[in-house]
Order: sequence, then structure tokens, then C-alpha cells
Amino acid sequence: MTIQEQLDILRRGTTEIISEEDLAAKLAKGRPLRVKLGVDPTAKHVTLGWAVPLRKLRDFQRLGHIACLIVGDFTTMIGDPSGKNKTRPQLTREEIAANVEAVSTQFYKILDPAKTEIRYNGDWLGKMGFEDVIRLASRYTVARILERDDFAKRLREERPIGMHEILYPLCQGMDSVEIDADVELGGNDQKFNNLVGRTLMQQFGKEGQVVMLCPLLVGTDGKEKMSQSLGNYVSVVDEPNDMYGKTMSIPDDTIENWFELCTDVPMDEVRAASADCNAGKANPRDLKRRLAREIVALYHSPDAATEADAYFVRTFSNREQPVEAQETPVPAGLERDGAVPLAALIATLGLAASNGAARRLIEGGGVSLDGEKVSEPQAAMAASDLRGKVLRVGKHQFRKLV
Amino acid sequence: MTIQEQLDILRRGTTEIISEEDLAAKLAKGRPLRVKLGVDPTAKHVTLGWAVPLRKLRDFQRLGHIACLIVGDFTTMIGDPSGKNKTRPQLTREEIAANVEAVSTQFYKILDPAKTEIRYNGDWLGKMGFEDVIRLASRYTVARILERDDFAKRLREERPIGMHEILYPLCQGMDSVEIDADVELGGNDQKFNNLVGRTLMQQFGKEGQVVMLCPLLVGTDGKEKMSQSLGNYVSVVDEPNDMYGKTMSIPDDTIENWFELCTDVPMDEVRAASADCNAGKANPRDLKRRLAREIVALYHSPDAATEADAYFVRTFSNREQPVEAQETPVPAGLERDGAVPLAALIATLGLAASNGAARRLIEGGGVSLDGEKVSEPQAAMAASDLRGKVLRVGKHQFRKLV
Repeated sequence: MTIQEQLDILRRGTTEIISEEDLAAKLAKGRPLRVKLGVDPTAKHVTLGWAVPLRKLRDFQRLGHIACLIVGDFTTMIGDPSGKNKTRPQLTREEIAANVEAVSTQFYKILDPAKTEIRYNGDWLGKMGFEDVIRLASRYTVARILERDDFAKRLREERPIGMHEILYPLCQGMDSVEIDADVELGGNDQKFNNLVGRTLMQQFGKEGQVVMLCPLLVGTDGKEKMSQSLGNYVSVVDEPNDMYGKTMSIPDDTIENWFELCTDVPMDEVRAASADCNAGKANPRDLKRRLAREIVALYHSPDAATEADAYFVRTFSNREQPVEAQETPVPAGLERDGAVPLAALIATLGLAASNGAARRLIEGGGVSLDGEKVSEPQAAMAASDLRGKVLRVGKHQFRKLV
Repeated sequence: MTIQEQLDILRRGTTEIISEEDLAAKLAKGRPLRVKLGVDPTAKHVTLGWAVPLRKLRDFQRLGHIACLIVGDFTTMIGDPSGKNKTRPQLTREEIAANVEAVSTQFYKILDPAKTEIRYNGDWLGKMGFEDVIRLASRYTVARILERDDFAKRLREERPIGMHEILYPLCQGMDSVEIDADVELGGNDQKFNNLVGRTLMQQFGKEGQVVMLCPLLVGTDGKEKMSQSLGNYVSVVDEPNDMYGKTMSIPDDTIENWFELCTDVPMDEVRAASADCNAGKANPRDLKRRLAREIVALYHSPDAATEADAYFVRTFSNREQPVEAQETPVPAGLERDGAVPLAALIATLGLAASNGAARRLIEGGGVSLDGEKVSEPQAAMAASDLRGKVLRVGKHQFRKLV
């Protein structure tokens, strides 16, 4: 494959490559490139959003390159020492390893394990002394660190920035130095940190890494970035019907973007189909069905995609209850005062990320029982009354409670 | 002695005590207080400027307290890793210890060795790992660090601040935590750093140190802060006649301030004498002679003070050359092309801090040979021609070259 052909594949679904000339030069060397992606060891699910850079990694692997996943155990072990950031809980090395073990199986739905290296940054950052830190810090100016959008904003708004927070970008940068990254992948929000890595590598007399930025995939709500805490996500281990159904719930104007970021369908084809829809020559629903089939086929199988599609047509095309909702026992142990809170039930069945998210779904009118909308977030019902009813969460998730 | 009497002694010659109530409370405990002063291990001379906080330490010692000198070997061992700061050369542990050994004898002209503790901050800072640094950094915000005057100014003027520089105040603060300082002494320019120590101690659950700030002594030029690099200094190991002569060269409007910061003469007495001068009832020269005698008596002896005074009267009161200038051989090895550069001669004899400072003195008209002003900074003369001549540097330093 020519360099240009490789670039065409790698460029898909990226917003910025710094710089494409450097990437071309690295590809021209003819050796496997080391492509870095930072991994947060606190998350439990690989979502389609997280899958965006992972799929880009897989593109690199298909071209013969190495995926280097950097587990940020060093910073996670420390947590946020100021105790202010709840998204950075303090975890032990063992908990972190267990989390990584758990998501690894999900990674390998996308990545080729034979071409994947998993490294823990505590292995090098944990060995640095104060003296090393000062030498490292001397390589960067305060002004450049404070250029980072969120730092600049907080400083302007006089909201506190802990001194330790401005050290984190240097930690990430050291990771690139340590593993000799050729390329670092990241979401758009990582541009600054990744460029710190590029600069630090150059300061250490190495070739600076190429920075490739991927857009942040919008969630099924069509509004916010896909995230596990917002509950607007599709996990790569969702059951086929759920994966299909959640995909069918996205707004029409996000279809093209999802095709680009979540599938391998050639973009010319997608744009043509999309134009047909806009011109009224085709139905967006059919294009979305194609999208949903592609996604299920990727993470399950083409057969599973066909079945999920058939199930969807049978059940939703005529806007009825599904005739064959998946049977699910009411989990034991949820009762409070003899009744099962619906929010807890929804969260326990994995149909929402948390009790809070489930309550918000109820408030938003997204939950019904046997076709009757539930309006009270604190609603509860005896397990015996729940059995036999069809629970509907969002547009496309159903469970027949037994 | 009552707390109030102790406070009266300790308050002399300080510009700010944060806070006096806290200091009174600490004194009321009746145990020896630990009084910290940071010491830069790169300097060779204890000047009267440096002596200001050292003398305040001695005041504490006389009241039964402990002087804790903190040698900043940690930061000096690192130097300025950005290589931009020439005043922070990189020194080895051995060189630092040798420097401290050298200035210790000068310290003990002021301090009581039995009540002095010398600690090296590398002993604790050198043991901190990256993780400890991040935890430490989390205790302070970027905004608070950037409030420091010189940081704020550089940021405003878009001049670079290295990331490592903003870690230094935390290092100094950790010193206070480590040694359990009750009080930290510093020049006015150290206010911010010393307050970081006070805050950090409180964050570590300790009682915050009291911060006592001493004014910066103005040099013999009456303009700039006394400093070894500017050459406007009096060293505590200067010969009596030089010490006396340099003191006599200060402008009249600094006399009162020098009395306050460099002697133990009661300020009521000084102010009364100063008022007499201002009213034309006394001659400032006589007040300055008293000052010079006091200083020589402190660092040499009352007899030496009397002799230096007599020498001064004999030689300068009638504005003549000294009749008995100290004989000094022309040092060997200074010739260039058969002639001794005067600037090198002046620096080698210790009459200026460096060749550059000596050249500036010549340019400023401050150097003469046998009463004839030298005007050319690059002036040089054969050693044989120099011998027999009287070299005058500044107003009051003379050497008869032999």
C-alpha cells in the first residue's frame, strides 16, 4: 500500500493531525510505528465513544503498527489529592489491574492482542524523585501550561487550579518520552496534553510524536458527549437488540457522523445515501437501520445484526410493544418496605448507568410499564406485581419481567 | 523578662511580624522557640546585609531560643535546570558543605554555636518521590503562587516562568514543616515564600510559623540593596580600617537606618542624635564615626574600633592621602603583556567583587594611584612601576603597593 493510501485510511474520522507531513515521513520509514493511547483505569465499559480512538488504533494495527495502551495507574493511585474531583477516585494497584483486566476483553473486540502493548505509567513515573520532577518541570513554562483552555477559563473565572493539576500534563508527556511514541491518539479535548508530549520528546532529543485527534462522539441523546455517567451510551458489550435499539434512537442529524466514527462503510457511500435522504428520495430510518446493522455486525456478527434488524422491524416498525421482549427475572434483594423501586430495578438490569440516571429517565418520561408511562421517580411496586409486565426504558429497550 | 520586654527587643529592625499576637503566644509557652533562616550555600561572605537577620536570630538566642539555619543544598544541587539563572550554579554536596564550613566561622561572629542547628534540606526534599510532590502541590493553588510579585510581573510582561520555579516556594515551605519552625526570619523579598511555609504548616495540622521580615540593608552606595555582586558591601570579616572606612562612605541619610539594622545602640539615642544633626546642632560625620566604631567593635573589638577611628581621623579628616596606608605586595601572575591590569589588581586584592566591578569603579572615577585619578577601565602598568604607589579604591580603601 502506498503512503498516500495508508494516510487515506488513517485520516478518516480525525479532526486534526499534527502534522500530516510528519506522519507521512514516519510511515515512509517502513518500520512498525508505536501508537499511544491513554486509558483511564476507572471505567467499566468500552463505549462506542471510547471505541473511536480504539478503532483508529486498530486501523494502525491493520497497517502493521503497534498499539501502546498506557494505563494511568500512577495518577489514579494518587487520585485527586485535593479530594475535590470525584471522577478521580483513589484506587489501589490491584483494583486498577482488575479494571484493566475487565475492559481488556472489551478492547480486544476491537484491537488485535498480538499487536497490543499494555504499559502502566506508575512503572516510570513512580520512580521519579523530587529532583527529577524539578528537572522535568524546568522544561515547560507556566504560561504555556496555563494556555490550556480549561485552565485559562478557570483562572479567568477565579476558580481554583491545584498546583498538582498542572503537573498532570507533564506526566502524560513523560509517558510519550518513556515509550518512544511515534503517534499519540486522543479526543479533541486532549490536544493540549498530547502536544506537551510532542514538545517534551523533542526536548529529550527525540523525534516528536505525531498528534492525531478524534472527535468526541455525541451520545444517543444527540446532544452531549457519549458518557457512562450521563447514560447516553452504547457499550460494545451491549446485547445485539439493545445495541441496535439504542442506535435507532439517535437523532437523524447524527447518522452521518456515527457512520464515520463507528463503522467502516466508505464515506462516499454514506454521503450519497445521506444526500438521498435530504432530497426526500430515501427514508432516514432505513439509513439508520443500515448503521445499526453495521454496528451490531462489528461487535457481534452479521447474523446477529440480521436478527436484531428483524426483531426491530417486527416490534417497532408498527410502533407496538415488542412481541417477544427478552424475559428477565426481577432481581432479588431490591425491595424496600416490600416494594421494588423502579429506578433501582432499571439500574440493576443495566438499562441505566445508575439509580440517579434511572430517576432522570423516569422524570423525562422515558420509562413505562405495560405501555403506561411511569411519572414518579421514586415509584416502587411489589415484585409480584412487576412479574408479567413489560418494562420499557427509552425508545428501544424492553424487558419482560418474570 | 516579660513577654512585652522580649517583644520590644525582637521587634527592633523588623518591618512586619505576621502576627505579633502569634509571636506573643509562642513566647508565652516558655519553651525555646525554633527560629528558621534559609541560607544560600553559594555565597562566600557574610555581609552586613546578611547580618541583619542573623543578628535578629542572635536576639532570639539571647532570649534562650534556637537558631535553625536551613542550607538549601537540595535546590543548589539541582541548580537552575533551565540553565538560565546564573545565580543558581550547580554545586556538589561536597562543595556546598565546604562553602557552609567557610561561612560558618563568619556566622559564629554573630551567632552562638551552642544554640545553632544547621540542617540541609536535601535530607528531606531529596527523599520525596513524584507522588509526594503531587500531594504537596495539591495543597496550593496556581493562582496563589502566581500572586507572588515577581511572578505576577513576569506573567504580565509575558516573560517566561519555568514550571520548576513555582515549585521552589513549596520546597521552602516544606522546610518549615520538616523542622517545626516556630518563627521564620527573612528579608522583605521573602514574605511570600515564608507565608507559604506558614500555610503549609497549618495544612499539615501544625501551628503556623510566625513570619518576621527584616528590611533589606542598603549598600554603601546608598542606593542598591547591599550585595556581593554589586560590590557595595561590607563583609563581617573586612579588616577594621576597611570596615570603618566603607561605613564612613555611606550617605548621611542612611545613617539612622544602619544604626537600627547593624548595631545595638538604643534607637531613642540614635533618633535624638539624628535630630541634633538635622537641627544643625551636631555634625553627621561624628554620628557616622560613632556608627563605624560600633560596627568595628561588634566584629572585631572596642580597641580595634578606637584604633580604626584614630587612623581615620589622622588620614581623612584633613582629606589627605593616608599617611600609613596598609602595605600590600603586588600579587604575582597578573601581568598581561608585561603589565598588570588595574581592574584585575583591585579585584585580586579584594577591593572589588570582580574584574567587572573594578572596571565599573574605574569608570565611575573611584580609583586613583598616588592621588591621580585612573580613567581608563583597561588601564595597566608594569608591576615595577606600581610598587611604591598608593592605590585608592572608593573613598576609603587604600593600599600602599610594595
